[in-house]
Amino acid sequence: MKVTVKIMLKNGVLDPQGKAIEHALDTLGFEGVESVRQGKIIELDVSDNTSQNDIEKMCEQLLANPVIEDYEIQTA
Amino acid sequence: MKVTVKIMLKNGVLDPQGKAIEHALDTLGFEGVESVRQGKIIELDVSDNTSQNDIEKMCEQLLANPVIEDYEIQTA
Repeated sequence: MKVTVKIMLKNGVLDPQGKAIEHALDTLGFEGVESVRQGKIIELDVSDNTSQNDIEKMCEQLLANPVIEDYEIQTA
Repeated sequence: MKVTVKIMLKNGVLDPQGKAIEHALDTLGFEGVESVRQGKIIELDVSDNTSQNDIEKMCEQLLANPVIEDYEIQTA
């Protein structure tokens, strides 16, 4: 089973990497970029009997930092 | 306009970060994790007259490394 976890910084948490990209795009001459935020995507290939609950535990314990990050689990 | 760019290492390119996560999940006692790959997600807020072509140029020139990475553009 393929699981995709998308991890983004919570709104309000400063994202220096996103800011750097925004700045770099501007320097390269791309106009109209209003904001950029960067996150992580983790694709897991897990056995079919892995529950949604297990995946949430993986996110809470390892994949994301729940203090500053939000995660979104997509199962395909 | 919100644009999401998903960047993953091409198949066949070694992903040490993914391997490290796989290993850590195993150490934490999560079973049945067969493979893990990590990528980046970049959310851009661009002006409405930005073309798909512009976004592809941003990916080729800055956001992704087309030699080792694949990117996927989602416009919402």
